[in-house]
Amino acid sequence: MDVIKVSGSSRTSAVAGAIAGVFRENRHVDIQAIGAGAVNQAVKALVLARGYLAEDGYEVVCLPEFADVEIDGKVRTAIKLVVELREPVLVE
Amino acid sequence: MDVIKVSGSSRTSAVAGAIAGVFRENRHVDIQAIGAGAVNQAVKALVLARGYLAEDGYEVVCLPEFADVEIDGKVRTAIKLVVELREPVLVE
Repeated sequence: MDVIKVSGSSRTSAVAGAIAGVFRENRHVDIQAIGAGAVNQAVKALVLARGYLAEDGYEVVCLPEFADVEIDGKVRTAIKLVVELREPVLVE
Repeated sequence: MDVIKVSGSSRTSAVAGAIAGVFRENRHVDIQAIGAGAVNQAVKALVLARGYLAEDGYEVVCLPEFADVEIDGKVRTAIKLVVELREPVLVE
């Protein structure tokens, strides 16, 4: 599981902990949010998570994208916040 | 001027053009938004601007932060989206 789905009622600190936890395990995490309230919670959680991960020595950056998501048979446009290390690790 | 202030009623495409324009000039831009609607517009605009800048050969990343902003004598917490090149240019 490396997609964290955030709603407008998600608790910021809980989401931040999840972001940091998944990132530590996978060096990558996608955060998905649909609607203004959810995007706001996701960004606030990411601010906190960047702080937690900086303490671990990871500088993470956010790459925002649009993503089409099907919910109850309807296609909606989500915001996907892709979180990666600033300097990608090259696998040779 | 390298702070772009976004409100909930800002037009996404106009903000995206401003982000790309300031970035091209300064290789850096800060986007400031207060409230869920504004943060949502800012993130959507940033998705578009990342596309424009990718066409110019710039891979930009977003570093979200909290920022205290004084408005009408009251301190409010804004979201600041710092936009930089993925690989920072080292000035030696």
